[in-house]
Order: sequence, then structure tokens, then C-alpha cells
Amino acid sequence: MSPTPAEILAAVRGQKAYVAELFDELRAGSVDGEGVTRDTFGPGEQFGYRVVEGRAAAMGLEIAHDHGANMYMTLPGTDRTAPRIMLGSHIDTVPRGGNFDGAAGVVGGLVAQRALQALGITPACDVTTMAIRAEESVWFQVSYIGSRTAFGMLPDGALEATRVDTGRTLAAHMGECGANVDAVRRNQPWLQAKDIRAWVEIHIEQAPQLIEAELPVAIGTGVPGNFRYPYIRIKGDYAHVGLPRRFRHDAALAGSDFFVGLDDLWQQNDAAGRPMAFTIGRFHTDPEKHALTIVPGEMTMSIDVRAYDPAHLAELEQALIALARRIEAKRGVRFDLGHRTSADVAPSDPGVFAALTDAAKRLGVPSMPLASPASHDTATFTTAGVPSAMLFVRNENGSHNPYEAMEIDDFLEAAAVMTGWVVEQVRA
Amino acid sequence: MSPTPAEILAAVRGQKAYVAELFDELRAGSVDGEGVTRDTFGPGEQFGYRVVEGRAAAMGLEIAHDHGANMYMTLPGTDRTAPRIMLGSHIDTVPRGGNFDGAAGVVGGLVAQRALQALGITPACDVTTMAIRAEESVWFQVSYIGSRTAFGMLPDGALEATRVDTGRTLAAHMGECGANVDAVRRNQPWLQAKDIRAWVEIHIEQAPQLIEAELPVAIGTGVPGNFRYPYIRIKGDYAHVGLPRRFRHDAALAGSDFFVGLDDLWQQNDAAGRPMAFTIGRFHTDPEKHALTIVPGEMTMSIDVRAYDPAHLAELEQALIALARRIEAKRGVRFDLGHRTSADVAPSDPGVFAALTDAAKRLGVPSMPLASPASHDTATFTTAGVPSAMLFVRNENGSHNPYEAMEIDDFLEAAAVMTGWVVEQVRA
Repeated sequence: MSPTPAEILAAVRGQKAYVAELFDELRAGSVDGEGVTRDTFGPGEQFGYRVVEGRAAAMGLEIAHDHGANMYMTLPGTDRTAPRIMLGSHIDTVPRGGNFDGAAGVVGGLVAQRALQALGITPACDVTTMAIRAEESVWFQVSYIGSRTAFGMLPDGALEATRVDTGRTLAAHMGECGANVDAVRRNQPWLQAKDIRAWVEIHIEQAPQLIEAELPVAIGTGVPGNFRYPYIRIKGDYAHVGLPRRFRHDAALAGSDFFVGLDDLWQQNDAAGRPMAFTIGRFHTDPEKHALTIVPGEMTMSIDVRAYDPAHLAELEQALIALARRIEAKRGVRFDLGHRTSADVAPSDPGVFAALTDAAKRLGVPSMPLASPASHDTATFTTAGVPSAMLFVRNENGSHNPYEAMEIDDFLEAAAVMTGWVVEQVRA
Repeated sequence: MSPTPAEILAAVRGQKAYVAELFDELRAGSVDGEGVTRDTFGPGEQFGYRVVEGRAAAMGLEIAHDHGANMYMTLPGTDRTAPRIMLGSHIDTVPRGGNFDGAAGVVGGLVAQRALQALGITPACDVTTMAIRAEESVWFQVSYIGSRTAFGMLPDGALEATRVDTGRTLAAHMGECGANVDAVRRNQPWLQAKDIRAWVEIHIEQAPQLIEAELPVAIGTGVPGNFRYPYIRIKGDYAHVGLPRRFRHDAALAGSDFFVGLDDLWQQNDAAGRPMAFTIGRFHTDPEKHALTIVPGEMTMSIDVRAYDPAHLAELEQALIALARRIEAKRGVRFDLGHRTSADVAPSDPGVFAALTDAAKRLGVPSMPLASPASHDTATFTTAGVPSAMLFVRNENGSHNPYEAMEIDDFLEAAAVMTGWVVEQVRA
């Protein structure tokens, strides 16, 4: 006998105190001033893993760790060999970030598994919550380290990437957190698409679109692809404050032209209904050389550009390079774009998207479809060939900052949709 | 009997080896990688003072130091009470700057005094070369510290300004270099306008306008006034890389708008023949918080704006503030302009300008009039009421960088003009 929608909702909503207390425990151990820092492959992320592992053990789940130190918490199914259902997200945060970006997806998986237990359901296949390492690319400037490691898809050279704060390599940090670095180096897969029936990740929304729409939950239509130039350098000429305009080769003014030009491009794309985003996160003159009375001869910046269609991404990259060339000619400077990284566009699986939409309807949870503007590990599952989708939770203040404002009630609505979907998937 | 133009030129040009050797000695003791650093009220400036004092002593000049540790090297006149002729410039440099910005004016004074000695002239009044402290405002973010101290015109609070690299106060640095800090604090004047007949400063040009004009020397028409905001902060909101454009309050994009907007303003002023300059020397996101995947919530910059007419300066400041207000409205950010400093416009004295022009003509030195785009201690003498002007020497590569390219022959042409002018002034 399947549980009724009311029974599913009750099994999830009844966990409110448990969920609030678990989030509080995670926050308390990783506060950093106003924000929360769970540093990738460092003490903050390790702390989060210990907390989650303790909860999974208390639930009686099977616990496994792969060669990349990702963790798998499994509620066994009647057929252990059948392709499994996977849920989860990452544990790490950006520096001085918020408590929910990442952790909500892991807690969401545990909530669904606890609901299955409370409803007395033994699933037909394994249901696994995965706690993923190193999703926040700010630390090593590499995307999706944990999930790519699990699938044996880590890009060449990633192990030698250095963490921006410690200067130490990913290999060194991983090793300290229990990874088998040699196996990672061989890009040995732990997960394979054929063994996974579907993947769903709950995540807080990173824009206030659900606030505007007055809805608690959105069902993701896809994760954008991106290209990134983490270390663009513009070289002009340092010069005296007295140099007339026509003789200047001001690198910071060239950088400003570039920034404003890209914003114009974004505005045009918005007007044309072509979703994209660009972010220049680091943007600075050289602190060793800049001064009140010196025309800047050098400017450094990072850039991330994202869109939902590979052809659109390629077009944006051409436009970016053409803009740089125009500014070089106009200002007498040189752009050195430096090394480039990229991630593929990852549209949601239509079947999983439809099934999540059905589950929301069945449970009476109001929702809307929403393209994720941000990158997520779900993109790795999609690229690997796993049918995947995401659920987003209303959040007023964006993420990657201390002011994330997810209501536990909204989170539980998303967890209920996920649970309703799992219940349908695991019926014998 | 006055010397002939040919005798004056010979007395100056004959010092070529002496001048080259003296500049080499200054450079050798203050090289810093490719450039030269003679840090304000620090070891670099102290080194320069020792070298120059040794040369003055060897010439038999009277040497005095004021309460601000400026140095005066005097060739006595027949009437010691008559208003004196003053020559000179500063000894300090910006970090990793060039050897000639500042030092050329001090060496120029010594060359003129040596020429008078070689020509057997006892001047009617004292002829003094002043080696000025702390002209480079990059160190303490205060303009004209040395010359203002000499005239008792140091602005309130300047002694508490801290050096950008050491973090220690001007008072502490001054005291270590032999200044009488109590007397400086009382703003006790050492120099008074009534005792000074005229002031002339030789300086390398800081733009390649004499290169374009193919002339060795220019006679300055005036020094611009300025206003400065050394620590402007723009506050927006830190946000996730995935935040759509309409929700962003990107502080670095707002800073870029501001930079590009000011450049447009400068272009319009240039087209209208209204000389000005602006420089944003420091321009950066917060290195503690910026990252590849975070929309910048904060931007810091310095700004220096200069022009030759007080009304024009006031108009530019209004335009700057209006631009900031428009960007605040457009981008949803806040500009905090921080503290403001300023320096008065200082047009050259028409009499001194005409006499220098006459001297150049008499000696056959080709020259042109030129407005200085940069600040100089000459502005302090003008503000104090001393008839003043400047001479500029051709220089291909600007100043405040290691590549200053002043030819000693061009420098000697300027020194010859100054010497010819002094000879006329000091006839009995």
C-alpha cells in the first residue's frame, strides 16, 4: 500500500524540529564572524562531514566513502543490485558564506530517507544520500571536484591546483581528508551512470525569483554551462598623474571599459530573452604598485560567463574576445586572458523533471519551473549520463553570503516533493 | 661686467661630466630593482640628502636645515639682508620611480651656483638652493609636506597621517630624520615671502609634449590645483555568481561606470580646450572577500582631479559628485567619498615667466610655454606669495616610473636658462 499525500506530507513536516536542530549544529561549528565557512578539503568541510555521518549512523544507514572522500549514506533496497536512487548535495561553503548552500541538499536526502523509514517503506532499490566534496570552485578554481572525482572525470592538472588561501595543492588537501590520491590521479570511477536510476539535488535558490513569485519551491529545468578565465591581466603603462589623456595607457580604465561593455552585452541578451550571466569577482590594480598619484599600468580580474546553450556560450566568448580586442586598440593596452576552464551545459532530464512536477501537484505543493543561474554538482551527473534534476527552495537574500534566508517550512515543502517522487520510484 | 651668453652657456655645459656623475651617485644609492626609491622621511630620502649636502659643502656653500628637515645651500650675496633668489626641488621619489623627478631641480640649483662661481660672480643677494622634503604625496597622502612646513602652512592633522607602507605617522618619520616636530606642530614659518625675491624649479616633463614639439626646454605657465579623495568606497551587495542581473548591486561594476564616466568628462573637456586631468590610481575589490564566484559587494578607489582654474575645479567636483549620485541610483549602491584634500591652483608669476623667456631667447635655447599637468612645490611658493615659475626638461617616458629618459644635454639647457636668469637678477 502506498502512503497517501497527507501521510507523506506529515512524515516530512513532522521533522521540522529535527531539521532546525541539525542546521543549527552545522552552523554552530562553522561560524566565521557573521558568516559560515566550511572550507573545501579543510577543517570546516571535515566538521560538516562528521556531523552528517553521525546523523546517518543514528538512522542505521550504510555508510561508505569513495577514493575522493565523498560520503554515501544508503537505505538498502530489497534488490541491492538494481540501479539506485541518489539524493544529496555538497557540504562545503564559500568563505563567510551561508549555512544552507549545499548542506540543504544533504539534509534533504536524510529527511527523505527518514520519511521512508517513518512510513515503513522498504524501497525496491537502494536510496542513497551523497555528501559531496569541494563543490565551491572559489577555493581551488576548479568546478565540481567532488562529483567529478566520483565519476572519474576530474580534469587533468586539477590535483595540482592550489587553494587560494593556503597555496597548497588539491592533492595535499585531499590526502589529509582521507582521500586515496593515487586512485584519484588514475581517475578511477566509483560511480557509474548505469548503476544510478536518477539523481535529485535540493538547493536554496540563489536569486529572489521565488520571493517575487510567492512560491516555496521551484523545479529546475537545467544547470548552465560556463567558461571561466580566473586570471585575466591587462597590461598598460604605469605613468605619472600629470600625464595628459592622449598619452595614457591606463589598464584600470581599460578594465572598466571591459566590465561596462560586458554589462551592456548582458542587458542586450536579457532584452532578447536569452538567459546568461557574467561575473567579474576579482577586479584590482596591483597592491604592490598602485598609488594615489600613479596611473595604473596593470589590472587583474577573474571572469565567469554562463548560459544554457553551448552555441550561445560560444557566441558570448567570441563577443568577449572581440570586446577585449577593441579595448586594446582604443586604450593601447594588452589583454592576457590566462588559462581557461569550462563546464558543459546540463539540462534537466525531461522524465525526472516531469515526475517531480507530478509529485508537487499530487502533494499540493505550489511550484514553478526555474532555470538555475548557478553551477551545481547536478551538472556532473547529467554529463555522466544520469537522469537528473534539481529542486530549489525560496530564499530572499541570495547565497554565498551570511544572509541566506531560507525558511525551514519552505525547505520541508521541497523535501516533501522529493520524498513523494522517491516513494513513486521505489515502489516494488 | 656681465658675462656674455656664450660664457654662461660654456659655464653650464662644461659641467656635463659633473652632473652625470652626481645623478649616477644618487641612482646607485637608491636603486630598487629596475627603479629608484627615495622614500619620504626614510632611508632613501636621507641618502639623497647626504649626497647633496656633501656636494654643497665641497662648493663652500652655507648649509642650513629648518625645523622640518629641509636643507638650504646658500651662495652668499654682497647684501645678506636683501630678498634672496631661491632655486631647487625635492629629493624623494615615488616607490620604484625614476632618478630625475625631484633631484633634477636640486642638481639644477647647484649647477647654477657653480656656474656663478666659475664666472667669478658675487651675487648682489643670497642665491639659495633648497632641497625639499616629502613632495611625493603617495607616501603620506598629503601634498607638499616639506615646502608647506617651511612656510608654516602644513594642514591640520598632517603630522598624524600615516605612511602607506610603514603605517607610522609623519611625526614619527620626521623626528627620525632630524626635524623639530614641536616646531612643525606650531606651524612656525622658516621662510617668509618678503625675504624671497623669486623661486624657480627645474623639473623633468611628465608627458612627452616636448618630445612631440622637438624642444629641450619649456617654461611653465602654472601648476594645477587639485582635489583628492584618497579612499572612496562603493558599497553594494555581495552575491552569488548565479544572481540575475536585475537583482545585482555590483560595487565593482559601479566603480567601472564611474571610471568610464569620468573619462568621458575628460574627453569632453579636452575637446573644449579646457585642460584638466583625473587619475584613479588605486582601484580594487576587497582582497579578503573577492572571489571568482562572488559578485563584488565593495570597491575601493583613490581619485585625484586637477585643473588650472578654481572655478573649473569646482565645476569638475560637482560633476564628479553628480556622476556618483546617478550611478548610486542606477546600480543600487552607495558611494562613500571619504576624506578630501585639496591644493590651490598656482599660476606662474608673469614677471618671472617673462624673464625666463627672455633668458632663453638671449642664450638661444629653444623653448615653449607649457602648463604643468602635475603638482609641484612651486605651488606652495606661489600660494605663499613668492613670485615663482618652473622650467621643464624634455623626457620621453614620463616620470614616476623607472624609464625616465632625460638627456643630460637637455637638462643643461634648462640649467643654462636658469643661470642666465639668475645672472640678470643678481647684478649689483
